[in-house]
Amino acid sequence: MCRWAAYIGQAIFLEDVVSSPSHSLIHQSHCATQCHTATNADGFGVAWYGERPEPGLFRDVLPAWSDPNLRSLTAQVKSHLFLAHVRASTGTATSRNNCHPFTAGRWAFMHNGQAGGYDGFRRDADMAIPDHLYAQRKGATDSEALFLLALAQGLDADPRAALERAAAQFIALSRAKGTTPHLRLTAALADGERLYAVRYATDENAPTLYHRWSDSRQGRAVVSEPLDADECGWEAVPAGSFCTFEGSGVKIETFTPEPVALAA
Amino acid sequence: MCRWAAYIGQAIFLEDVVSSPSHSLIHQSHCATQCHTATNADGFGVAWYGERPEPGLFRDVLPAWSDPNLRSLTAQVKSHLFLAHVRASTGTATSRNNCHPFTAGRWAFMHNGQAGGYDGFRRDADMAIPDHLYAQRKGATDSEALFLLALAQGLDADPRAALERAAAQFIALSRAKGTTPHLRLTAALADGERLYAVRYATDENAPTLYHRWSDSRQGRAVVSEPLDADECGWEAVPAGSFCTFEGSGVKIETFTPEPVALAA
Amino acid sequence: MCRWAAYIGQAIFLEDVVSSPSHSLIHQSHCATQCHTATNADGFGVAWYGERPEPGLFRDVLPAWSDPNLRSLTAQVKSHLFLAHVRASTGTATSRNNCHPFTAGRWAFMHNGQAGGYDGFRRDADMAIPDHLYAQRKGATDSEALFLLALAQGLDADPRAALERAAAQFIALSRAKGTTPHLRLTAALADGERLYAVRYATDENAPTLYHRWSDSRQGRAVVSEPLDADECGWEAVPAGSFCTFEGSGVKIETFTPEPVALAA
Amino acid sequence: MCRWAAYIGQAIFLEDVVSSPSHSLIHQSHCATQCHTATNADGFGVAWYGERPEPGLFRDVLPAWSDPNLRSLTAQVKSHLFLAHVRASTGTATSRNNCHPFTAGRWAFMHNGQAGGYDGFRRDADMAIPDHLYAQRKGATDSEALFLLALAQGLDADPRAALERAAAQFIALSRAKGTTPHLRLTAALADGERLYAVRYATDENAPTLYHRWSDSRQGRAVVSEPLDADECGWEAVPAGSFCTFEGSGVKIETFTPEPVALAA
Repeated sequence: MCRWAAYIGQAIFLEDVVSSPSHSLIHQSHCATQCHTATNADGFGVAWYGERPEPGLFRDVLPAWSDPNLRSLTAQVKSHLFLAHVRASTGTATSRNNCHPFTAGRWAFMHNGQAGGYDGFRRDADMAIPDHLYAQRKGATDSEALFLLALAQGLDADPRAALERAAAQFIALSRAKGTTPHLRLTAALADGERLYAVRYATDENAPTLYHRWSDSRQGRAVVSEPLDADECGWEAVPAGSFCTFEGSGVKIETFTPEPVALAA
Repeated sequence: MCRWAAYIGQAIFLEDVVSSPSHSLIHQSHCATQCHTATNADGFGVAWYGERPEPGLFRDVLPAWSDPNLRSLTAQVKSHLFLAHVRASTGTATSRNNCHPFTAGRWAFMHNGQAGGYDGFRRDADMAIPDHLYAQRKGATDSEALFLLALAQGLDADPRAALERAAAQFIALSRAKGTTPHLRLTAALADGERLYAVRYATDENAPTLYHRWSDSRQGRAVVSEPLDADECGWEAVPAGSFCTFEGSGVKIETFTPEPVALAA
Repeated sequence: MCRWAAYIGQAIFLEDVVSSPSHSLIHQSHCATQCHTATNADGFGVAWYGERPEPGLFRDVLPAWSDPNLRSLTAQVKSHLFLAHVRASTGTATSRNNCHPFTAGRWAFMHNGQAGGYDGFRRDADMAIPDHLYAQRKGATDSEALFLLALAQGLDADPRAALERAAAQFIALSRAKGTTPHLRLTAALADGERLYAVRYATDENAPTLYHRWSDSRQGRAVVSEPLDADECGWEAVPAGSFCTFEGSGVKIETFTPEPVALAA
Repeated sequence: MCRWAAYIGQAIFLEDVVSSPSHSLIHQSHCATQCHTATNADGFGVAWYGERPEPGLFRDVLPAWSDPNLRSLTAQVKSHLFLAHVRASTGTATSRNNCHPFTAGRWAFMHNGQAGGYDGFRRDADMAIPDHLYAQRKGATDSEALFLLALAQGLDADPRAALERAAAQFIALSRAKGTTPHLRLTAALADGERLYAVRYATDENAPTLYHRWSDSRQGRAVVSEPLDADECGWEAVPAGSFCTFEGSGVKIETFTPEPVALAA
């Protein structure tokens, strides 16, 4: 289980989400409260959109709390749309290529959750990634594979449907070769213009997801747990939801991966 | 506050102390119980004696729990005398040069504790290190400075007296320019033949120190907290003690830094 | 192109090959002479056999010349059989998981060479790795994939034939989806008892391979280029050869990957 | 010897200096031509000014050519004033704290050159740093010490005079306890508004220094060697010069450290 936070709105310094709040993402790297692992020290990353269509990406393997590069970068860089993540490994190695977010073209993706028995179907998941996206397969995590499957399923055309189909592929593989819980998924995606988030699980324990609009900031934070326990206004997203954040607007739709049959 | 474990006796694999026990040092890097910080993830190190008079030294900045090099090294290397440490920074940067143990010639040293207001007298501590030892000053920690002062005070000739004098220098500097607690010190030292440990504080809160002889292993573990809560036989060392471990023997003497006057 | 050196014989300190000779492997990380890239600074690794059937493995991403852990480890650890490698990336990322040697069970493997157009058939190479070995696929290099294919082809039963078949798979994939040169391969393997080496290319430019017996040391070095230009006695291995080193003996056989048809 | 490049003018992406030119700084990390060491792979760093008075700072220990974070950062971040550096260690460890640039308050500093026999007077150089700046002493390099001495000598009030006095302190120490060449210094400094550069040596071999105005870019590059051998317009700065770059203007003054007496 990991912790993450994303933002869309008027451009702010990344540190306004990453390190300044009382329960900032960096604070959560030490003392998360709403997940199994209080310590999320197996690497971190940020993806942010600036003047180019493709996001910037900065990832490293140190605990987020102790990296001076992260501190300096988030104090200098402003963005209207960014994703930030602190990682607690569920088994794969602590390496930059296994740190979130993952990026491809104009897309960025990060994830908190698990895919039951992933070790038993990692090769199958890799095989489902088409040739033209395989060069993007840099690490070994379930999250990166899920992202690349979603791209293959048409993320550009219909993000919700593409991610549903990718999740369905994972669920089918976990049912065939893995274990329960087959999929727990709280993820954020962005394409440079919109921010998307999903909360879903095949069992009763979908990882938490919140968002909060700030009038003073004219922007919205979307997070795996609130950045400040004393702030009011954090709205919990129900399980089985796909959220689209654009401007100040929020659209929440159902997220329902349809069962798929595996190729013979 | 950090956690550490040392061993002297018949040669064993380092992992028998570092990772195999139920509350091994690696387990303590995640879940220490007898110190303020449960997480000790700001780097780690091991120093071990083999066929040469000088110890080997392996230090890195990742959390100990996630470093495959540490896992492999401790599974392969056997030693009759070694020191291992997991670090929780009290302010200085996470860099290899700030990780314990520190070595110089045939000596190795590691430390858990604090020197009150060290930032305010770091330069004075550095100035107290003589020229011929200054090349060994690689990082910025209080612990490395204390070790080099002890070397300057005659560690080779009389370890207890040298460390008392170095501690006294630190206490005087902390009194002049720092804050309380002036010194809390639980340290281990080795010279290739003997293992030494000290437990001391200027206040009532000397960090814990234990040791335990194993008949089956024919060796002794000396630790900041027991490696296995269910094992009996862990002996607590009283505050104000300097221990010398050689063969199966233990000698415990008082440790009493005498007040020193600072140079004008 | 990378540089490597291996050793079998009476146990010596690793540094006797890695750093002490005038043109040691560390010297070659700065100034290699017999390959395209004089600088081999994209990580390094050593695998050595000690008291266990499985080798120890130490790999990191710094240039070999500047890593104090490597210097200390090779000064302390003795081994009768070890592999050491300095890397010049041909495209994949500088990460520990992409550094040689690679290990699986009691096997260790390292490689210098190239697989023409590997980016275009990486997914196919991965798909050829069977499920039970896929958990060992940690990185993204051609070398690791080739090693796992050789394991799948029966490295335990017949190392030469297994490596021939794996090389043939790579050549077929490069012919179908890659570019020339389809395969250049100078690799070393060890199983804890024997050291193997291969020199092969589909074109005229098989990377160099040498070996040299030392009477004083009672051991043999096997290298991609001589460790000391002034030493006599370095024997060049002809292209198309598979060498088995055991005790003081050398057996040299032909290495001839047979063309294979790709699965439809 | 290291390589560095700085820029002042209309805001550009950092990559326009760091990686895009044919002989960019990253290219020089592999293949420098105007210094002793062609390979500058012992870490790198960039300091850039954005919306805050203090610069951002990003440093790491990998070779610059292989760091994806550097590539992404320099492709995203624009600045009107920045410093970039690739390091070839002259002895001190490869650690982030030993990488250039160094920053303090609104100042950034980077250096190419050497201080003869620095190991013999490092402690004296440290002792010359006043208490209130000593917390900034993070690493062990001569360059960082020189920068802190210059700050102590009044960098804010008169950069040229302050750096002359700091250089004079270094020269006196090298004469007393070091070796020839006592000082070779090609450095760049910035305070957020102006860019300064110095070229000086106590012998005939002051490291090279060039600058070039670009009309199309409306900015000036200041470099240790030209970024593109085919571009005309690179102006060589004579030895013994202190340059101030502001707007499109260049002011070149003499740089003459006056001999100083050491404290008894």
